[in-house]
Amino acid sequence: MKQKTIAIVGLGLIGGSFARAFKKYTDYIVIGFNRTRSTAELALEQGAIDAIGTEENLKEADVVLLSMYPKVSCDFVEQHIDCFKPGCIITDDCGIKSYLVERLTGLCKAHGLYYVGGHPMAGREVSGYKASSADLYKGASMLIVPTEASTPDIVHEVKHMFAAIGFSQLVITTPEHHDRMIAYTSQLCHIVSSAYIKSPSEMEHKGYSGGSYRDLTRVAYLNETMWTELFIENKKPLVAEIDEMIRHLTEYRDAIDQEDADTLFSLLRDGRLRKEQFG
Amino acid sequence: MKQKTIAIVGLGLIGGSFARAFKKYTDYIVIGFNRTRSTAELALEQGAIDAIGTEENLKEADVVLLSMYPKVSCDFVEQHIDCFKPGCIITDDCGIKSYLVERLTGLCKAHGLYYVGGHPMAGREVSGYKASSADLYKGASMLIVPTEASTPDIVHEVKHMFAAIGFSQLVITTPEHHDRMIAYTSQLCHIVSSAYIKSPSEMEHKGYSGGSYRDLTRVAYLNETMWTELFIENKKPLVAEIDEMIRHLTEYRDAIDQEDADTLFSLLRDGRLRKEQFG
Repeated sequence: MKQKTIAIVGLGLIGGSFARAFKKYTDYIVIGFNRTRSTAELALEQGAIDAIGTEENLKEADVVLLSMYPKVSCDFVEQHIDCFKPGCIITDDCGIKSYLVERLTGLCKAHGLYYVGGHPMAGREVSGYKASSADLYKGASMLIVPTEASTPDIVHEVKHMFAAIGFSQLVITTPEHHDRMIAYTSQLCHIVSSAYIKSPSEMEHKGYSGGSYRDLTRVAYLNETMWTELFIENKKPLVAEIDEMIRHLTEYRDAIDQEDADTLFSLLRDGRLRKEQFG
Repeated sequence: MKQKTIAIVGLGLIGGSFARAFKKYTDYIVIGFNRTRSTAELALEQGAIDAIGTEENLKEADVVLLSMYPKVSCDFVEQHIDCFKPGCIITDDCGIKSYLVERLTGLCKAHGLYYVGGHPMAGREVSGYKASSADLYKGASMLIVPTEASTPDIVHEVKHMFAAIGFSQLVITTPEHHDRMIAYTSQLCHIVSSAYIKSPSEMEHKGYSGGSYRDLTRVAYLNETMWTELFIENKKPLVAEIDEMIRHLTEYRDAIDQEDADTLFSLLRDGRLRKEQFG
């Protein structure tokens, strides 16, 4: 079988890790695009990519993996729409899906390209190419979103490709379901962590805190540029999750304020049982 | 120097770990009290204690460490007030301090006993003697609360005793400051985790969640009997922290709902900077 080529557009933590993983675990030829050229040069020097991306070699890519913020990822496809190989599979790793599916599906279909959304359930608090690792995706879950610009065969190929670099679970979902779930499993975590440390007590926590505090506040260390975009583009399900959270917090608050031990016990017990059941 | 005796009252995860740690790292004679006798027998068999506690050998204890819920810990002292050795140091590991200081200080003082509050910043999601470990306190912080029933020398002795079993930080504080800090660093974590998983999305999270979700919801698996008591006995600072949390969550919620990217960016950035500064 002819060796295939993948172009990775954006060599940050996520894109850089994809590049390293494809180099380490597959025989794909890896082309890397990056706005800051010195990063692409470093990636080339380190063997994380085989070539720095150009309009010319983009035409050879069988797969293009967009690894930038949602808007810029879509802009890249629009700007390079005549530079893709016919039948090229476009995919991405952005944290929201409805937005990309709306902007890319019709466009790709009209130009004889495939588009399948993707989102790896992996990351680190630090960002940037230097933090990337070939093994970031080992054992993680990869969410895959078929679109009207894809076929079952193409989706199968994309699954196979991601399984090859270490993902242990490939989950097929819709853009709407993806965005609703991510509002809960990822976006709300970051908002809760960030809101948590706004308490005036934060300034004195040292010496009084242990593992619970560490876990609850870990992801307050975040990239505010990226998350601002992701949160606003996923407004509806995210606001619903925050409202749900505030409603439940208020139940605990009122039970404590009224010294209503029975209600408080039930609230905590229900939480513990849910954790046991769905953990 | 004569070998000293410590009585540990309550051999759960925390008390059991104290017993094992005193046996492993000091030459204290360790006496263990436990409501369920078979647990005390198991601890004796395993060498975690030197003897099962009785009214008789309690009289030999130089230190008594209360390791039960707050109310029952205070009840134990009241019920055994004539069984302590004169000059005995009573301490505890309960998660709140004002309540114990109020009930125990006058009583101990009137009977020629010392009382110094304690609270180890260590724990696990699982409870019970079988989960206990001699090294649970290694590298952890121990909060120590002097009272009117203690002297600087006694506080020094208590610090020395806890440092010997692995605590790396001994923090001296007041009951009020302790309870205010713990409302934030520990109690609020458990309420937020428990409230978090009340979302209907919880039932479908598998495959869509990663490390952030895992960390945010870990302590929802809790002992509802213990926390109900601790939360209600620390009502005032805890309700203030929950209100603070809800107020901040509402700021993020409104910025997202109004698609106000500048405000949202500032909120997230401020959170990231606080994490960097006070982390």
